[in-house]
Amino acid sequence: MTTVDLNGDVGEGFGHWALGDDDAMLEVLTSANVACGFHGGDPRTMRRVCAVAADNGVTIGAQVGYRDLVGFGRRFIDVASEELTADVFFQIAALDGFAQLAGTRVRYVKPHGALYNAMFANASQAAAVVEAVRSWDPAMPVLGLPDSQWLRQASAAGLPTVSEAFVDRAYTSSGTLVRRGEPGAVLLDPDEVAARSVEMVVNGRLVADDGSTLSVVPQSLCVHGDTPGAVELARRVRTALRDSGVDLQPFAKP
Amino acid sequence: MTTVDLNGDVGEGFGHWALGDDDAMLEVLTSANVACGFHGGDPRTMRRVCAVAADNGVTIGAQVGYRDLVGFGRRFIDVASEELTADVFFQIAALDGFAQLAGTRVRYVKPHGALYNAMFANASQAAAVVEAVRSWDPAMPVLGLPDSQWLRQASAAGLPTVSEAFVDRAYTSSGTLVRRGEPGAVLLDPDEVAARSVEMVVNGRLVADDGSTLSVVPQSLCVHGDTPGAVELARRVRTALRDSGVDLQPFAKP
Amino acid sequence: MTTVDLNGDVGEGFGHWALGDDDAMLEVLTSANVACGFHGGDPRTMRRVCAVAADNGVTIGAQVGYRDLVGFGRRFIDVASEELTADVFFQIAALDGFAQLAGTRVRYVKPHGALYNAMFANASQAAAVVEAVRSWDPAMPVLGLPDSQWLRQASAAGLPTVSEAFVDRAYTSSGTLVRRGEPGAVLLDPDEVAARSVEMVVNGRLVADDGSTLSVVPQSLCVHGDTPGAVELARRVRTALRDSGVDLQPFAKP
Amino acid sequence: MTTVDLNGDVGEGFGHWALGDDDAMLEVLTSANVACGFHGGDPRTMRRVCAVAADNGVTIGAQVGYRDLVGFGRRFIDVASEELTADVFFQIAALDGFAQLAGTRVRYVKPHGALYNAMFANASQAAAVVEAVRSWDPAMPVLGLPDSQWLRQASAAGLPTVSEAFVDRAYTSSGTLVRRGEPGAVLLDPDEVAARSVEMVVNGRLVADDGSTLSVVPQSLCVHGDTPGAVELARRVRTALRDSGVDLQPFAKP
Repeated sequence: MTTVDLNGDVGEGFGHWALGDDDAMLEVLTSANVACGFHGGDPRTMRRVCAVAADNGVTIGAQVGYRDLVGFGRRFIDVASEELTADVFFQIAALDGFAQLAGTRVRYVKPHGALYNAMFANASQAAAVVEAVRSWDPAMPVLGLPDSQWLRQASAAGLPTVSEAFVDRAYTSSGTLVRRGEPGAVLLDPDEVAARSVEMVVNGRLVADDGSTLSVVPQSLCVHGDTPGAVELARRVRTALRDSGVDLQPFAKP
Repeated sequence: MTTVDLNGDVGEGFGHWALGDDDAMLEVLTSANVACGFHGGDPRTMRRVCAVAADNGVTIGAQVGYRDLVGFGRRFIDVASEELTADVFFQIAALDGFAQLAGTRVRYVKPHGALYNAMFANASQAAAVVEAVRSWDPAMPVLGLPDSQWLRQASAAGLPTVSEAFVDRAYTSSGTLVRRGEPGAVLLDPDEVAARSVEMVVNGRLVADDGSTLSVVPQSLCVHGDTPGAVELARRVRTALRDSGVDLQPFAKP
Repeated sequence: MTTVDLNGDVGEGFGHWALGDDDAMLEVLTSANVACGFHGGDPRTMRRVCAVAADNGVTIGAQVGYRDLVGFGRRFIDVASEELTADVFFQIAALDGFAQLAGTRVRYVKPHGALYNAMFANASQAAAVVEAVRSWDPAMPVLGLPDSQWLRQASAAGLPTVSEAFVDRAYTSSGTLVRRGEPGAVLLDPDEVAARSVEMVVNGRLVADDGSTLSVVPQSLCVHGDTPGAVELARRVRTALRDSGVDLQPFAKP
Repeated sequence: MTTVDLNGDVGEGFGHWALGDDDAMLEVLTSANVACGFHGGDPRTMRRVCAVAADNGVTIGAQVGYRDLVGFGRRFIDVASEELTADVFFQIAALDGFAQLAGTRVRYVKPHGALYNAMFANASQAAAVVEAVRSWDPAMPVLGLPDSQWLRQASAAGLPTVSEAFVDRAYTSSGTLVRRGEPGAVLLDPDEVAARSVEMVVNGRLVADDGSTLSVVPQSLCVHGDTPGAVELARRVRTALRDSGVDLQPFAKP
């Protein structure tokens, strides 16, 4: 039976400011990328989200980012390697505390926003983040884009790598994401997104923006949680996959 | 043989801004209160200070504070209990990550600045911090003032308590510190401070600001590290204690 | 003809995090309390909100607060007078820049959250904020609760004072607000809130939580903008006042 | 008689953390680049530094930077144009408030750290900062490196431009600074720095790191204030210039 993981971002509010519906998403996801306070999230939110995830049997991952609240971690910052390593390590350690309090642990690491994007090609930052993860736990899985510096260097460092695909983003024929802001970059039609998810997982195929077909073998599908209709979209993807006989399972046990 | 611990604050710089001479202090102290990023400290500094402390055989404690960089944690903040518990837990967990990276662990918790002062009498905040420590590790020692809500509630919660005295602060006849800003609140004469330290540890006595004598049994002496001449003062205290036959040992093994 | 001002908070989002519907509120209010970046708000938001307020003929006030993003300025902070004065002055100056860019100026000052609450009785903080306003502009109106230290000291310093009442908050028989969190502290029924607003402005009366009647002469009514249904509630208040022959006018020209 | 301006950074402490000796520098400089709170500086410091500068007859400039306290504004951040414009405008407006309180105004703008460096070639960020300055005051002088995007675009927008040279930095034969971290990038010998300053101002010449001679016509010389010996170095430069008959005058009146 085919299995796939469904990951999404949670815990990205900050103090009085909410973002998305964490509780609803934690009923849909199999893996939760929990913000660690640097781009979003605060200790109270981290504690609460870890508890709900644990209760729901959802695997907890550390969603590490640049230290940039006002920019929500979506702006590239030219952080020196030693500092980036320490920043990422700090975030993992803090979140793991709350995961332990909830009776579980941080089971994987997925970078957020501009750090995620930078690490596709930025070898220096990828190396700094890999070093942080490896020094925390040399057997910690990392989640990211296939062919990225992030996954390549993680793999070279002996870390298990998990590749993901985005259910609601358009791809170019070379397998990269069409950039946000370009027309059609984000798919909004639930039917299309659900069908696309099934096609990726069941048939290993994805139609790129030029009509060509890509081969994909995602171990995890990423759904977004902070847009209007996000929860409903995630539910549709989950249902469509199940209806197609796909078993939804986290790639790492909670 | 009489033994006592010598504790002091380290790692309180932030980014480009330095504070005190951490390396020099870590050659004098037996226990280091390491800032955790909320009132001072940043991940790179935390990592570095933990490594030096571990190399020197100095015990690492979590110096937890209010989330207030611009105020350096020295302003009372009326933080709700649930939030304060999460904030303190977060700080311990993050620091413990770096302590583990250095081959050791966080061995005790000592609050900083206005939080330390508030918890002398503020039962609600004391309870929130005790809850954070207890939920992290129900056998974690806590360091503070005798007769404070902090130590009383910690003791009631089953946490080992360690009482400290300040070598360079004047005391009232009721055993509380003379407030900073009042004349004579801070002792600057190295000879007086050294003699006072010996008198407290060896004879269990302390002369208050009105000339009366207090009985004290400090398990730890606190020296400050961020004032001019602080390192020299700490060295003088250490030497005077040793010359009086006192063995300087951390209350918890590194 | 009776006139009254309708004030509310706007611009309280931060970066990626939104709060309330600023554009909708700026169609209802006559005076906008614009956040200045210390408890909420960021430069881009401040610029945008000032431009919309100016376009709509809404008077701009500086909503100054404690420097506390994670607490949204809702936690008392024991800020020293000199620092509080500088913090408040900074916020007014920054916002006034954006007001000037929009072709207008900051026309009044209203403290936010815990600072607002503290200044009811805390003479020291009230004096510090009054000093900030006075040194910015000795003829700048200030908005607040009648009988507060804030308005009393402002008046003594020669600043014009404007007293406000809250349309959706319960009052005690002594004229203070029933504390948030107590049952019935916040009124949610639009009909009741609208009727209460009219009663206050037209008849100068307000029924307290014990059934007694208070005399009130509010120059401004405060409506909240960050709760569900807030915009609709504000519209209802505005309509009810107009239907009762009340002219809605800002107390200071835009 | 030849005249030149002597500019340096002041007010770059933050809360409890000091940086450099502002008072001493304000006795040497003719123009003070005052930090505005985004990379360093806080309201109390801004107020104090403006007062001292005004007392000493030193011209005040806004030293604007990226919003990055932990990185001290020394890390490139990919800030969107609209946001960068608002951020810079905010900083100028806030500082100008304190300058007015001291009886003067902000007389020029000089970017800090990574923003300064980025704007040498980054046309988009340079345009955003120019837009901020122009919308604040279309006659506001800007200070920077000759041939930079910053000065070119400012000039095209009608802003007066002032070019500076660094007294203690090595230059390449193409007129750019040797990067920090490379050997010899920072000159430490007071005699060499003083002689170099005179040579630049009196003879319009500068010896590059390859021994070739550059023509330079600096309207302002930049001295650093945050390194050990910085104040002494600045005094030496000032004395050497005066001894060579150079008149030290700010390029804009205080």
